[in-house]
Amino acid sequence: MTTSTAIRGLWCATLTPLSNDGGVDHARFAAHVHDLFAQGVDGVALFGTTGEGQSFSLEERRGGLDALLAAGIPPARIIVATGCAALPETVVLSRHAVASGCATCLVLPPFFWKGVSDDGLFAWYARVIEGVADPRLRMVLYHIPPVSAVALSVDLVARLAAAFPAIVVGIKDSEGNWAHTAALLERVPQLAVMVGHEPHVPRLLRAGGTGTICGVANIYPALVRALMSPDVTQEDEARLATFIEIAFRQPFLAGFKSMVADRTRDPGWLAVRPPLVPLSEPARRALRTALADAGLPPLAASQER
Amino acid sequence: MTTSTAIRGLWCATLTPLSNDGGVDHARFAAHVHDLFAQGVDGVALFGTTGEGQSFSLEERRGGLDALLAAGIPPARIIVATGCAALPETVVLSRHAVASGCATCLVLPPFFWKGVSDDGLFAWYARVIEGVADPRLRMVLYHIPPVSAVALSVDLVARLAAAFPAIVVGIKDSEGNWAHTAALLERVPQLAVMVGHEPHVPRLLRAGGTGTICGVANIYPALVRALMSPDVTQEDEARLATFIEIAFRQPFLAGFKSMVADRTRDPGWLAVRPPLVPLSEPARRALRTALADAGLPPLAASQER
Repeated sequence: MTTSTAIRGLWCATLTPLSNDGGVDHARFAAHVHDLFAQGVDGVALFGTTGEGQSFSLEERRGGLDALLAAGIPPARIIVATGCAALPETVVLSRHAVASGCATCLVLPPFFWKGVSDDGLFAWYARVIEGVADPRLRMVLYHIPPVSAVALSVDLVARLAAAFPAIVVGIKDSEGNWAHTAALLERVPQLAVMVGHEPHVPRLLRAGGTGTICGVANIYPALVRALMSPDVTQEDEARLATFIEIAFRQPFLAGFKSMVADRTRDPGWLAVRPPLVPLSEPARRALRTALADAGLPPLAASQER
Repeated sequence: MTTSTAIRGLWCATLTPLSNDGGVDHARFAAHVHDLFAQGVDGVALFGTTGEGQSFSLEERRGGLDALLAAGIPPARIIVATGCAALPETVVLSRHAVASGCATCLVLPPFFWKGVSDDGLFAWYARVIEGVADPRLRMVLYHIPPVSAVALSVDLVARLAAAFPAIVVGIKDSEGNWAHTAALLERVPQLAVMVGHEPHVPRLLRAGGTGTICGVANIYPALVRALMSPDVTQEDEARLATFIEIAFRQPFLAGFKSMVADRTRDPGWLAVRPPLVPLSEPARRALRTALADAGLPPLAASQER
């Protein structure tokens, strides 16, 4: 296995904070990433699902990356989710990420079309790679059918890995279906297999996977880090399972933002871009109470850590 | 009912021809639209589902409209599908269509996010309207859950129609579910209700709907026009049903392009953009044979009509 360190370990699928005018808040964004690094995450993935990536324009996505780089975040610790519904725009964002020196591009399949063939998806990814036309491109395929409604079959992944061995270096499997993850580990062992579903992390690492790109790391990186230890305990796993159960009682993304707003004491973090809606005050209180009742670590203000 | 003529009648959801380099072929595009007008369609809808709209960049979508206008197509006979996954890009395309004098904008809901609330979708559409900030904007909502995987509930449509009575003027219902169409006609009679599913056209017109924006009009406008007559016969309806049954034996969009390639004797029409794939030669032959066996009108070359 020649997996680079770039796609190994604990990567946070970062939330994207908004400013009062509804755009990406660059200062909050950089502060959040610095805070995640201070808490020990290995890197961040920008503008994925948890980052509301598909709700932002190309310009906003490029601008968000540029702002983090300007704030001193090393590009080698940044994965950029560059997939768009349209092929040419996926090329534009991927070229920008590569030119910026970022670790890899995380690429969704084109998600408007449903029920398309593996041949069509293969051609789409091949055209993206040809369009970027840069040998520095490293691509992580992004499998998240519960949201995208377009799955990447194991056959397709194997075909892409074989056709572009220097470029297609990994897959983020966010289906939460262990059978699919296991099939990937078996069939394409040369790829870095990362999961999005945190409870699968211990099993993944034992089976040869390389880590996680996940949303829970926005809130409790230490909880996820514990799962990555060879000494992970049943208690660690139970704590994470409890957190996830609570986090999915409401729309998870608005819930995550509410938790960061609490931790940072910054209500600006509550904003989500439509069609998502922020949590109501009663929902926020219920969430806080549930976390406290479950004995999860308090969401201390950042500066108090 | 004060529905303008702009959203009434037979509108063709036009296919988008590609050039050798994979971009939108402006000359073929304009020729196709002129041909449709010569065959009696009232107007065209650009870059919807049948137009592979989500496969093109903003620039390509704006460029395609500009090219048709430059070729003398009257903007009042053009509906532009301006919906994008991202809100700011939907605003950009809608502003361009409005500034160009086009009849209306046809707007998909944001289709990456699944299971979102009516509140969230309402906020999204409201932000699009506020973002366009032009009283000339006329919007037709685009309900096509079999592809978008995001439905527009009758409640949401009624709420948008009530909140923006001068702007939200219609809905294209492409679900193919008569119960939903009937509920729209009952609940929001002030809207122009158009269907995408051609077999519903006679029933729709009898029930107060205003027409169709449909893909079959790329191939057989006269077949659809016959359905719009008060004297529509069972034979007319049977012919359309037969055509649709045959057209959906293969991916319909590649099949439609194959039929236009036959009619125009221009194999350049076969190209689709990935992740769609063109029909194979055997599939094209089977399609031709099926149409001939069904006694459907021959696909004569345009210049022979």
